Amino acid sequence: MKQKPNAIVAQSGGPTAVINASACGVIQTAMKSGKIDRVLGATNGILGVLTEDLFDITAESSETIDALKQTPAAAIGSCRYKLKSLEENRADYQRILDVFKAHNIHYFFYAGGNDSMDTADKVNKLASDSGYELVCMGVPKTIDNDLAYTDHCPGYGSVAKYVATCAMEAGKDTEALYTTDTCTILEVMGRNAGWIAAAAGLAARVEEDAPHLVYVPEVAFTLEKFVSDVKEVLKKFGRVFIVAGEGLKNEDGTYITADAGAFAKDSFGHQQLGGVAEVLKEVVEKEAGIKARFNKLGTNQRSAMHFASRTDVDEAYLCGQKAVEAALAGENGKMVTLIRESNEPYKCSTGLAPLYDVANGEKMMPSEYINKKGNHITQAMRDYVCPLVQGEAPIKVAVDGLPVFMRFDRKPLDKKLPKFI
Amino acid sequence: MKQKPNAIVAQSGGPTAVINASACGVIQTAMKSGKIDRVLGATNGILGVLTEDLFDITAESSETIDALKQTPAAAIGSCRYKLKSLEENRADYQRILDVFKAHNIHYFFYAGGNDSMDTADKVNKLASDSGYELVCMGVPKTIDNDLAYTDHCPGYGSVAKYVATCAMEAGKDTEALYTTDTCTILEVMGRNAGWIAAAAGLAARVEEDAPHLVYVPEVAFTLEKFVSDVKEVLKKFGRVFIVAGEGLKNEDGTYITADAGAFAKDSFGHQQLGGVAEVLKEVVEKEAGIKARFNKLGTNQRSAMHFASRTDVDEAYLCGQKAVEAALAGENGKMVTLIRESNEPYKCSTGLAPLYDVANGEKMMPSEYINKKGNHITQAMRDYVCPLVQGEAPIKVAVDGLPVFMRFDRKPLDKKLPKFI
Repeated sequence: MKQKPNAIVAQSGGPTAVINASACGVIQTAMKSGKIDRVLGATNGILGVLTEDLFDITAESSETIDALKQTPAAAIGSCRYKLKSLEENRADYQRILDVFKAHNIHYFFYAGGNDSMDTADKVNKLASDSGYELVCMGVPKTIDNDLAYTDHCPGYGSVAKYVATCAMEAGKDTEALYTTDTCTILEVMGRNAGWIAAAAGLAARVEEDAPHLVYVPEVAFTLEKFVSDVKEVLKKFGRVFIVAGEGLKNEDGTYITADAGAFAKDSFGHQQLGGVAEVLKEVVEKEAGIKARFNKLGTNQRSAMHFASRTDVDEAYLCGQKAVEAALAGENGKMVTLIRESNEPYKCSTGLAPLYDVANGEKMMPSEYINKKGNHITQAMRDYVCPLVQGEAPIKVAVDGLPVFMRFDRKPLDKKLPKFI
Repeated sequence: MKQKPNAIVAQSGGPTAVINASACGVIQTAMKSGKIDRVLGATNGILGVLTEDLFDITAESSETIDALKQTPAAAIGSCRYKLKSLEENRADYQRILDVFKAHNIHYFFYAGGNDSMDTADKVNKLASDSGYELVCMGVPKTIDNDLAYTDHCPGYGSVAKYVATCAMEAGKDTEALYTTDTCTILEVMGRNAGWIAAAAGLAARVEEDAPHLVYVPEVAFTLEKFVSDVKEVLKKFGRVFIVAGEGLKNEDGTYITADAGAFAKDSFGHQQLGGVAEVLKEVVEKEAGIKARFNKLGTNQRSAMHFASRTDVDEAYLCGQKAVEAALAGENGKMVTLIRESNEPYKCSTGLAPLYDVANGEKMMPSEYINKKGNHITQAMRDYVCPLVQGEAPIKVAVDGLPVFMRFDRKPLDKKLPKFI
């Protein structure tokens, strides 16, 4: 009797509140299928494959695996290791196949953004070229919501719910204390796309509500326009609450703040951002003569499990589940996509898109989601994002009053190959 | 028949998640008592009294008043206006009494920190000296938890629960992505006292958990010690998560970062802080050679109603209620205090302390709450804070998936006096 194949599940890039829910969907579906022997975790994404740092998730308790749904960030471990092209770095790809072969791995489930889909696609091609039977499936993940071919990305709904709530709450703070603390700037993530900043715009149900101004990287930022916007809001409400995406750009496409430090670029070569809020704070204080302060949620926005969107968690799980189901049904080289069947009532199904296409696409915000002045969102954006922030994910709280998150026991598999890196 | 007296309720200083719950306790208790005609709100604390900007809270809907319990920040409006001494600024105090007289106000309920208790105390003394029948009662409020004569302050439990949860969540993020994003610094509030930073320490249930290092203003900060601490953690876990109070000080008592900008001091003359995280990030990158990032929760930590402590909300309400009950029972010039009757099970009752004493006290963290190395908390701190973060306050969510907060209709009372400021 032929031994059943093993599957590997890995996570890549910036963590989210729900990437573990996707992993849970993969693991539980694979374990229930009867067609897969063991589900292995690759510690720190593709890095763990390269270094053969694998552990047997099937050996973890069912409680631990189930608790993935309530645990933020990437429990298997993530990385920002970007593989070069097949031509430039065939050795890496070959090593991945060698590790797969050594551990009887014939299914590779990779949760990540477009860089990860690119990796999965290339591994898949090499396997195919060399005649190794491998199924590579992508599971979409990015808070940035900028993946093409999917209506939205798991991870986005939760960050959207959280930043909008934070804008609402800090907005109430500014409203209460505007006589001295007149301006608050909330800096949110989003390197190229303004999806997160735009979601914070939801908080403004009426004009008086925070945020009064929302700036996204899709709209060129000019100082004159900004100062004029700020003064207009101040005249009307005596206070101003601003949401700014970290990737705001000047008209010439350069970032409005360029960090020249030693770690200005991450290992994917992406410019490391931050400092937008500080820049805007200085401008407001100087040009409007009022005190400004800023909140920078940083990694707390992408890990805010304590107020995650239930819709997002459920869809993240579904994406993992569907990746396995599609793989077992004979699909290969595809990423699961989310398809919005209808908006009222909201109905969402899943589809599949080629990894190659996803890897080479990017979804910017449609211009009709941003108002004509380029400083807030439109009703169309509200209609798009509201269904994604529905419901609160259940959260387990311990006797100490704080959430309970899981951590794998992570018993490492014996290494079968020589050291690689 | 003599007209029943009116009461005024006002809020001061930095908002919290539960200062409105205290206001709700005052308002509902006063309205139910049958001894008070109308409860008036002073828009923006004592400023609203000085400018005679008052509104009739009794005229608001009972739903609006009840929703105070679920709304963060200061719905009546807050301020940072500090009155000088009676000798230096008798005119201000006299004006307050004039406004009280003009509107038949004989009860003054003031929620705030020690500056506010000082104001209430001085107004009370002037009233007494001038023979005006007035009862001034203080309601404790400060996320900083540094008020004397009370076991803890309403507002602290919620910020404690939130920052600990944030440390836990962002800690999971760092744990997932440590191969590139090796260090995360979480900057939290706390000008002089480390209560908030210490609460974040709760997140570390085991040594591997974030935060690995917790720095409070009570312990003099030295660069050498810090770098050595960071390197030790890195050696052990390959990553480091740091919680830093905004008010960290050098051995000579100066802040480790001094903001020299135009708004470096607030109108109470307090040094405006911020930038601690940036300083530490630079040190870590330079001295340990790893990438560091920081999260600065800012005003989001004190307004995080969406994960507020139920215990805190209930106790905040209780403080408001008890202030009114004590006032109607003949007490005057006192602030309601919280008394911890027992810890297991946690039982809390209320007491009263003279406004003057509270105004002139400050409660620092006991040294036994900080470990010997000065870089984390002890079990004694856990025992102190755990009961305060128990339970999650109920939160109403609208059809758009986001919280619902109230806003007063705020119909202004006719002004009866000439303009003052």
